[in-house]
Amino acid sequence: MSHPPGTSLHLVADLAAAAGLDDAGLIEAALRDAAAAARAQVVGLHLHHFGPGLGLTGVAMLAESHISIHTWPEAGVAAVDLFVCGETADAPAGLAALVARLGARIVRQQALRRLGLPADGAPA
Amino acid sequence: MSHPPGTSLHLVADLAAAAGLDDAGLIEAALRDAAAAARAQVVGLHLHHFGPGLGLTGVAMLAESHISIHTWPEAGVAAVDLFVCGETADAPAGLAALVARLGARIVRQQALRRLGLPADGAPA
Repeated sequence: MSHPPGTSLHLVADLAAAAGLDDAGLIEAALRDAAAAARAQVVGLHLHHFGPGLGLTGVAMLAESHISIHTWPEAGVAAVDLFVCGETADAPAGLAALVARLGARIVRQQALRRLGLPADGAPA
Repeated sequence: MSHPPGTSLHLVADLAAAAGLDDAGLIEAALRDAAAAARAQVVGLHLHHFGPGLGLTGVAMLAESHISIHTWPEAGVAAVDLFVCGETADAPAGLAALVARLGARIVRQQALRRLGLPADGAPA
């Protein structure tokens, strides 16, 4: 990785009440919005669609780590994580952008210590 | 996604004392070992190498969600997560296989509640 590991913050969130969770274009846009808001550089973006009406897995590979999303359109829920490194990265802003694009609400959110960074060192 | 969200378990771990963390072949093998041990189906596998001597990001996209790894060979550390759904999946076995392939030790491990599954419902 290209940033010191001690600057790593990992946000994990479960989302509900989202629409369009079987729409690959929307999921890609949400990942790109999230990366931009987190001030992260996308080095690869990959989607897998499980079939008509079913969910997707999407991963944005970042110079600063990754953003992933898994969707269950039949339940209107999604699981996301944003793992970003670097002193200028802003994972909470990335999560906010992703949630906004999906029109979702956050059911549960956790900020994890990774590789030495206290979770309470995370931006509020 | 192709499995009920209530069966989702997310294991997050920081690893140390690993060798070969700039070796793309080893990282891919570790991801494939982990998926097999977790009884998960790989639907895509993507690697990004940050340059000679630098780390990698690797993601195995699974029918059951994903496994990711980020490596810092200069520090001998890596950050991994295994998010697997389905009643037959075994995330702890996947993590054990990944760690074994890298010759690493786990510095910190967390099992997360995702989409309704209590973390203490995880296999030990």
